[in-house]
Amino acid sequence: MTTPDWIALDWGTTHLRGWAMSGSGAVLEERGSAKGMGTLSPDQFEPALREMCGDWLDHGPVPMIACGMVGARQGWVEATYSAVPCAPLASQLTQVPGGLDVSIIPGLSQAEPADVMRGEETQIAGFLALNPNWSGVLCLPGSHSKWAHVSAGEVVSFRSFMTGELFAALSAHTVLRHSVQGTDWKEEAFAAAVNETLSRPERLASSLFSIRAADLLHGHGSGVARARLSGLLIGAELAAAKPYWLGQQIGVIGAGDLAELYVRALAAQAAPATQADATAVTLAGLTAAWKQGITS
Amino acid sequence: MTTPDWIALDWGTTHLRGWAMSGSGAVLEERGSAKGMGTLSPDQFEPALREMCGDWLDHGPVPMIACGMVGARQGWVEATYSAVPCAPLASQLTQVPGGLDVSIIPGLSQAEPADVMRGEETQIAGFLALNPNWSGVLCLPGSHSKWAHVSAGEVVSFRSFMTGELFAALSAHTVLRHSVQGTDWKEEAFAAAVNETLSRPERLASSLFSIRAADLLHGHGSGVARARLSGLLIGAELAAAKPYWLGQQIGVIGAGDLAELYVRALAAQAAPATQADATAVTLAGLTAAWKQGITS
Repeated sequence: MTTPDWIALDWGTTHLRGWAMSGSGAVLEERGSAKGMGTLSPDQFEPALREMCGDWLDHGPVPMIACGMVGARQGWVEATYSAVPCAPLASQLTQVPGGLDVSIIPGLSQAEPADVMRGEETQIAGFLALNPNWSGVLCLPGSHSKWAHVSAGEVVSFRSFMTGELFAALSAHTVLRHSVQGTDWKEEAFAAAVNETLSRPERLASSLFSIRAADLLHGHGSGVARARLSGLLIGAELAAAKPYWLGQQIGVIGAGDLAELYVRALAAQAAPATQADATAVTLAGLTAAWKQGITS
Repeated sequence: MTTPDWIALDWGTTHLRGWAMSGSGAVLEERGSAKGMGTLSPDQFEPALREMCGDWLDHGPVPMIACGMVGARQGWVEATYSAVPCAPLASQLTQVPGGLDVSIIPGLSQAEPADVMRGEETQIAGFLALNPNWSGVLCLPGSHSKWAHVSAGEVVSFRSFMTGELFAALSAHTVLRHSVQGTDWKEEAFAAAVNETLSRPERLASSLFSIRAADLLHGHGSGVARARLSGLLIGAELAAAKPYWLGQQIGVIGAGDLAELYVRALAAQAAPATQADATAVTLAGLTAAWKQGITS
């Protein structure tokens, strides 16, 4: 039976993950649930949490620290953004009223150009906890990829890109769905496509349709089409983010294939990047927030 | 009771339109059906056609000329593309086997950069029938907008852009759906967004997310968000199509609001464009194909 000192929660739009933690920061047990914030109304968060890990509370209340979209306006309780430049971890977390002891880490906002993040600030805090005094640029690939300029322990500025969501919407809801199905992947097509939009970003809108036309006319197959779609979009993101990464120390935060694509694409531009595991930095960030709470 | 000399058919992915025509090119009657090519298997085309206008055939067989996706590989009968440079109207139409006298106008293809069109070639032919000896650049806005360089009665080259389908997919299937709902429209936001991606096309991927962030932070409302999304995408298309339209005579083919957006966006770049009605040029193109058939 697990009796944690505190509970770490990563509560995104599509998933909920919880870790029973010891006071020394060790993971006692991990659980997951499909009850992401996107599927819940405000009164359904507490039941979802109790369902996933109610037994962790059998010996009395346990403090919980949560990050992610759980703190959005459409989430459980809105955790008002901290405005950059600022430390990734707000000094004050948002307390959830009710029967559980839950604190939510606020996201970050930027007035101009308008931008927001929720969840990534915790990963950035975790990355900095694991790499003290690091400065440079962090790339967090995903549905809404983030690039954050980090210096002296603060997020100076950041930009979001809809790359992941564009890939999903184009693959499922446009004429490209006929060409990109399956899991085949041709790495040369990816590398060429990254180069193409990096050097000529204005061509993106026509290059996208060309994926379909090339499939119809030349029958390159779905491995080429998928890799090309991914490469065109990541190349466009790298083109727009170039003022961020050019000549900087770069860290890419993410798990598995997607983060590796970014690392490879950057390496091809003579921009070496170190890769950090997303789960590890999320846990490190939640742990930093918990420590800050008990020492403040 | 309508007894046409021939029947004109515009058979796209989502719709079928038919016109009962006299030998002199006058429209006797017009009908429409939701049985677009996208909803039909090959054996369902003839029944769909008979259902819409079977009574026009009561006095015996009538030749029919069709354009659009009906001639695609997934359509009724594949009408093999004509490769540019070539006249928009192929000298040989594709005959449909079976009990009806149906000819399909082939689309156009371009090997490099790979590109295809089906239906727009008929509109281009119709535009040229109505404007003999015209040369310049034709823009055909839509799900897959086309830009075609036309000279000496031929399509020299063309490019497609997924602008319309991108707008639809982004509006319905990404986080932007929360911000762009409704029909409000702020023209200043459209004009500013066109300028933004026209001058800095590499920013598209981040500007898209910024629509959502600005709505969250500044609450500009859906009229700004919709107009901005449209403007960013059309600006990106105009940036990529600039080698086509810069310094050229420009015609925009299309009905209603969408074509007018393009005309306004081009006018703001000191590139005046004339607008031609899509239905009128489609009918003129089908009529040109019919005349070519009876005189050849």
